Amino acid sequence: MPEKPYEQHDSVGLVKTQYYTFAEPPEELLLTCGKLIGPITVAYETYGKLSPAADNAILIFHALTGDAHAAGYHSPNDKNPGWWDNMIGQGKPFNTSRYFIICANYLCGCKGTTGPSSINPRTNQPYGLGFPMVTITDMVTVQKQLIDHLGIKKLLAIAGGSMGGMLALEWVTRYPESVRSACIIASTSRLSPQAIAFDAVGRNAIISDPNWNNGDYYGKPLPRHGLAIARMIGHITYLSDESMHAKFGRRLQFRDTYGYDFSSEFEVESYLHYQGDRFVERFDANSYLYITKAMDYFDLAASKGNGSLTKAFENVLAKMLVVSFTSDWLFPPYQSKEIVKALMNNDKDVSYVEIFSTYGHDAFLLEVEHLSNIINSFLSNLALEIS
Amino acid sequence: MPEKPYEQHDSVGLVKTQYYTFAEPPEELLLTCGKLIGPITVAYETYGKLSPAADNAILIFHALTGDAHAAGYHSPNDKNPGWWDNMIGQGKPFNTSRYFIICANYLCGCKGTTGPSSINPRTNQPYGLGFPMVTITDMVTVQKQLIDHLGIKKLLAIAGGSMGGMLALEWVTRYPESVRSACIIASTSRLSPQAIAFDAVGRNAIISDPNWNNGDYYGKPLPRHGLAIARMIGHITYLSDESMHAKFGRRLQFRDTYGYDFSSEFEVESYLHYQGDRFVERFDANSYLYITKAMDYFDLAASKGNGSLTKAFENVLAKMLVVSFTSDWLFPPYQSKEIVKALMNNDKDVSYVEIFSTYGHDAFLLEVEHLSNIINSFLSNLALEIS
Repeated sequence: MPEKPYEQHDSVGLVKTQYYTFAEPPEELLLTCGKLIGPITVAYETYGKLSPAADNAILIFHALTGDAHAAGYHSPNDKNPGWWDNMIGQGKPFNTSRYFIICANYLCGCKGTTGPSSINPRTNQPYGLGFPMVTITDMVTVQKQLIDHLGIKKLLAIAGGSMGGMLALEWVTRYPESVRSACIIASTSRLSPQAIAFDAVGRNAIISDPNWNNGDYYGKPLPRHGLAIARMIGHITYLSDESMHAKFGRRLQFRDTYGYDFSSEFEVESYLHYQGDRFVERFDANSYLYITKAMDYFDLAASKGNGSLTKAFENVLAKMLVVSFTSDWLFPPYQSKEIVKALMNNDKDVSYVEIFSTYGHDAFLLEVEHLSNIINSFLSNLALEIS
Repeated sequence: MPEKPYEQHDSVGLVKTQYYTFAEPPEELLLTCGKLIGPITVAYETYGKLSPAADNAILIFHALTGDAHAAGYHSPNDKNPGWWDNMIGQGKPFNTSRYFIICANYLCGCKGTTGPSSINPRTNQPYGLGFPMVTITDMVTVQKQLIDHLGIKKLLAIAGGSMGGMLALEWVTRYPESVRSACIIASTSRLSPQAIAFDAVGRNAIISDPNWNNGDYYGKPLPRHGLAIARMIGHITYLSDESMHAKFGRRLQFRDTYGYDFSSEFEVESYLHYQGDRFVERFDANSYLYITKAMDYFDLAASKGNGSLTKAFENVLAKMLVVSFTSDWLFPPYQSKEIVKALMNNDKDVSYVEIFSTYGHDAFLLEVEHLSNIINSFLSNLALEIS
């Protein structure tokens, strides 16, 4: 009999999300916006074993709508493994027989870490818009507390794609002594105005939904339509013109000729509707607002370099790997090159790979073979240097 | 004293929209979708004088949200002239001392031509969703009736950008004997799945607005939020990454530091909100639904060439000019090249110009100097050939 997915030799198997709570009042955490928050619970998962010297830990960052469940299965009946399962496991680039892998949900998220849908201990109601605005800096502050709690002084590596790369960039500039190496995949040191524009329209769709009710919708009808529209916009930006041609073309759903009505006639329409509807089942609209704002705010040159990205990277000690994808128009290769150039201006140890791909931004999850080879080689060289 | 704008020598001056009504029941117009409609009123404007031989007429096509008012001023107090005023007038490419220029609002529009906001004579109520679905073919059928009514057997030229180019392509293939030349600017023989996707999300935003009320909102609160979101999405696609960097960058509106709230902080956000809000004052949400559907349906190869664009162009007699703009990602240059190639496969007379521009799709309205030179030269050569 064939093995069940979670029993396969390269799967991390059945895993459980863990929780760590800190910043218990009166010891609250001071956020960038000047407000205090606490207690904070962080949801995280780990795969593999931490070495006695605690020197084999790799922190993985998820993307905008991801979570701590990066690999393995939560139950034997789980249909899908964690979001980066093809990269994490025995014999995979993030090799769990060698490394101790950690992934944590972000502050203001909705996947177990404290966020707007969490109960505000002051009111015993969900925070809603009472949740303070959070930055990528704050998210990293919370992660550092988790890493300290796990007894890790220095991370062997950190790695993230898309928004995850922003957290990686924040880590290497904020805690240079605590990071040995970093993989920044399909990411940027700041969003383009076009990417901010897409975020803004998505937020506007949520805020315009009457059910959003100024963020106070928990236990009431959800702002489903608004959140679905935000997600549909997102999905267009994750694909490329080329990949949409390949995936959908102008094909119609269910019929050969036009129906001359306002139903979802084209396959691409139907795909977007499906993605939108599915998303509202698993994600909190307020978290979407807060996280996109955090992404919009992120600007490493402005926050750490007085306007200069080169200056922002002055203190970096980590060995850096930067990866971009040719057809990614949301986090385009020129943004990765800006990072590489600024690191090189500081004579930092940086490698850059631009992978040819037609998948658009989604390539960071889909170009598994390319990415596996590159990360494998990056981490192996690192291990050689250290040993 | 300086002249008033409408008194300047190269302005067509004060103009009036005219109306022509036909297809009076029981003589209704049969549409592509199989339904009948009538009566149909067409709103149109003309500039210049029709020659006695009626051989100097140029039909101009507007874009998705444009109208018949292409040049001049409706009143001495008008702040803005018609949408293509910089191209139409004495000494301008569409020279009104030589040519008779016509521009008509499209069937299913909301600018004077019969559309979903018009009164359905059968019910004495606005059509709303009772309006039949309309195709680009139907729009052109209506225009042909107008041209016949004006006593014009053969148009000297037709010209349109964006969606307007689609109507031009329909004209040259449907009525080859009636068109001497055609300018297809920043257009396509069919939308890409990406462009359909943006249209679909825009429509979804309108349809999700509770005020839309299944299209029955006339005299009631309008689906403002939905239509504004559709327009915001549109505006992102009309600009380019480069033009957004130049126009907005990451600059903040009204302040130097982040406000850490959900207001429109970035200039680009504020611009999009402004455009969205302004649009709902002047455009009907149902027309937006119908017109975007007509654009999505348009597929010249499928409708006229059994899947082959080359075959679709077999009967073309018009001298063709195709213009694209390098940074236009909504109607990208490769789509213009497909048109040119298909015309060349048929040994048709076609010129192609790809204009370097950072303005994105909006370039067709902004690159006035480039476009003026090209169209000037195209029309002058034509006049030489004819005379």
